[in-house]
Amino acid sequence: MKINGTHHRTIWPDPANKEEICILDQRLLPHRIVIEKLRDPEDAITAISDMYVRGAGLIGATAGFGMYLAALKAPESGFSSFMNQYSDALGNSRPTARNLKWAIERVNREIDKVQTVGEKREKAFATGCEIADEDALFCRKIGEHGVALIAEISRRKNGEPVNILTHCNAGWLAFVDYGSATAPIYAARDAGIDIHVWVDETRPWNQGARLTAWELQQEGIPNTLICDNTGGHLMQHGLVDMVLVGSDRTTHTGDVANKIGTYLKAVAARDNGIPFYAALPSSTFDWNIDNGFDIPIEQRSENEVTQVMGLDATGAMSNVTLCAPGTKAANYGFDITPSRLVSGLITERGVVDANRDAIHKLYPEGAGTGKSEFQA
Amino acid sequence: MKINGTHHRTIWPDPANKEEICILDQRLLPHRIVIEKLRDPEDAITAISDMYVRGAGLIGATAGFGMYLAALKAPESGFSSFMNQYSDALGNSRPTARNLKWAIERVNREIDKVQTVGEKREKAFATGCEIADEDALFCRKIGEHGVALIAEISRRKNGEPVNILTHCNAGWLAFVDYGSATAPIYAARDAGIDIHVWVDETRPWNQGARLTAWELQQEGIPNTLICDNTGGHLMQHGLVDMVLVGSDRTTHTGDVANKIGTYLKAVAARDNGIPFYAALPSSTFDWNIDNGFDIPIEQRSENEVTQVMGLDATGAMSNVTLCAPGTKAANYGFDITPSRLVSGLITERGVVDANRDAIHKLYPEGAGTGKSEFQA
Repeated sequence: MKINGTHHRTIWPDPANKEEICILDQRLLPHRIVIEKLRDPEDAITAISDMYVRGAGLIGATAGFGMYLAALKAPESGFSSFMNQYSDALGNSRPTARNLKWAIERVNREIDKVQTVGEKREKAFATGCEIADEDALFCRKIGEHGVALIAEISRRKNGEPVNILTHCNAGWLAFVDYGSATAPIYAARDAGIDIHVWVDETRPWNQGARLTAWELQQEGIPNTLICDNTGGHLMQHGLVDMVLVGSDRTTHTGDVANKIGTYLKAVAARDNGIPFYAALPSSTFDWNIDNGFDIPIEQRSENEVTQVMGLDATGAMSNVTLCAPGTKAANYGFDITPSRLVSGLITERGVVDANRDAIHKLYPEGAGTGKSEFQA
Repeated sequence: MKINGTHHRTIWPDPANKEEICILDQRLLPHRIVIEKLRDPEDAITAISDMYVRGAGLIGATAGFGMYLAALKAPESGFSSFMNQYSDALGNSRPTARNLKWAIERVNREIDKVQTVGEKREKAFATGCEIADEDALFCRKIGEHGVALIAEISRRKNGEPVNILTHCNAGWLAFVDYGSATAPIYAARDAGIDIHVWVDETRPWNQGARLTAWELQQEGIPNTLICDNTGGHLMQHGLVDMVLVGSDRTTHTGDVANKIGTYLKAVAARDNGIPFYAALPSSTFDWNIDNGFDIPIEQRSENEVTQVMGLDATGAMSNVTLCAPGTKAANYGFDITPSRLVSGLITERGVVDANRDAIHKLYPEGAGTGKSEFQA
C-alpha cells in the first residue's frame, strides 16, 4: 500500500536493527504519519491495547513480533515461565480479536520445536516474519478470489460503477498489506473495473473516516465518506451493490464478529436483497466456538464515545467533548453478524458459504481439532 | 421541560415585546445556553435552515411565528404578495419536515379569514401562539397514550427497568414542550415506572449526544449515550425492550421519515422481535403522499460529516476535522422507515397501526382532503 506514492507495510523489523519493530501509530492517522518502534515486549501490549495498531491481521502480526521481543528479553533460566506469563498478558490485550491468540499460539508452537534459547529467539523472529508475510500473501489471495464477485456485478451493470459499502477499516492498515475487505477492491481497480466505495465513518474511533477514506484516497479509489447512519438509506435507493467488510473473529459455523455496527448493515442488506460478504484470512477462524454470541465482546472507555479527536483550526490534534458533563456512555467494540445474514466468506482459499459444512470442507484440517493455523 | 430546574419552552414571544420571538440556539447546546431573538422574518428562515431550531414541532412553531414576523413587515399595499413570497422562501428552508409547510398553510388560511392588515397581523400572532400551544398539548397527549405501552412492558418485566432506545432528539427540544418520543418517557417517570434510555448519538449533528442525553439528564431520566452503531448489538442481547423515535413526516399510509439511521434501528428491531414505535402529533401527517419514498430527503453540507463540534480542553467550542484533506462526503438528513417495520404510531388521539385504514379511521377529516390540520 502506498503513502504519497511510496510502498509501505504496516509493521516491519528495522532493517538496521531487527531487534526493533517499526509500526505506524494509527491513532494519529491521517493527520500525522509517525513511525514508532517497539523495543520491549510491553511495547507490543501497549501498541495493541491502546490501538497504535488495530485490525485483525495487524494485531496478529504485532503479537507475533511481540513474542519475539519477549523471547529476546526472557532470561536463559526461566525462559518458558517468562514466555508463558507474557503470552497470557499479551493475549488479554484485546479480547475479541482471534488473530491475537492465534499468533501467540503459533510462535509458542514453533519455539517449542527447538532447544536452545538462542535457537528459540531466532525461531520467534522467523515466525513473526512468517506471520507478517503470510498475512500479506493471504490478503493478496483474498483479492484474487473476491474480485470475481465485483466483476460479476460490473458485468450485470454493463460497466457502470460498482458501489461497495464498507464498515470500519479492513484495509491495508488492518493487516500487513492489501487488507482483507479492500483486497478485492484493489484487485478490481487493477482489473480496470469501475468501482466506488461508500466508507462508513465508524464511530467511535472513526476508522472509516481516518483510515479507510485516506487509504482509498492514497490508492486512487473513488470513495465517499458517510455517517454510520447512512447505509440503510443508500441501500433502499439502489446505491449499494455489495457490502464488503472484514472480520475480527469468524466461527467455524460462519458467524462474523466485526466492528460494532456491522450487524446493522448486514440486516439492512438482507432487507434490500444486497449481498453481504466478509473477507478474512483463515487466521481469524475460531474452531472452538460454535455460536458467535459466545465470542467475548470488548467494552472500551466511555471517553471514546463522549469525545472525538480531530484537527482543530490551528492544525493541532485536539479532543473535543460532544456532550454535557456527567453524561454516561457505553462503548461496545464489536457485534456479531449471524451466518444467516452472510452471503459468503472471502478467504485465501476461495469464496465459501457461511456454514459449518462448507467451511470445514474448505479447511478440513480445522474441523474438530481446535487448531487455528493453516497453510494456504 | 426544565433547565437547571426552571421550566422553559423552546420558543416564546418576548413578554416585554411580542414582536420579538425568543428561541434557544440549539447549535450551542449543551455547551452554551444562549437565547436568540427573531426580529425579522428572515431570522426565522435562518433559524430553521441553519438549525438554531430543529425537530418537527419546533420547526412548525418557528414557521408559525415567522409568518407573524412577515405579517408585521408586509406593506399594507402588496400584503398578500409579500406573504406569498415569504411563504415560498420559508417553506423551502428545509425540505423534509412536514410541519414547516403545515404551519405556513395554517397561518395563511387564518389570515385569509380577516380583512384589514391590522387584523391579519393579530391573527398571525394568535395562530403562531395557537400552533405552539397545540404542539405542547398534543405532545402531552402523546405521553398519556404512549405510557400504556411502557407500563405493559414494565408489568411483563415485573418492574425491572424498561430499556428504551431512541434516535436523534424527538424530545422537548424538538417541539415546544414535552417532546413526542420523550413524552411517554416523561409520563412513565411520572407514573413511577422504572425506565432507562439508550441514546443514539445521531451523527452527523449529534442531536442525541448534545440534546437528548442532556435533556434526559436535566429531567433525571437514567440514560446511556451510545454510538449509532451500537443499537443492534444491544437488541441482540435483550438490552432493548422498545424503540421509540419521532417523525419528521408521516405518510397517511404509515411510512415514517425520520432522522437518517432510523431505518437501520427499525430493521434490527424487527430482526430481534422488538417493538418499534414512532411518536408524532398529527401535524406531521402528509395526506398527499402515499409512498414514503416520494418524500424529499434533505442533503446538507459535507462539512457536517467531515467535521464535528465540541468543547476543547480550554472549554471553548471548537470544530475538529476527522479525515484527510480532500475527503469527499455525502450527508443525507433523513431516511424512510416503511410502515411494515412500524409497530404503531403514537399520536395525540391514541396509538394507531401504521396503515392507511387505521390512520384514516382515527383522522377521518384527513382522508383524501389534502388537508393537514386537525383539532384533537
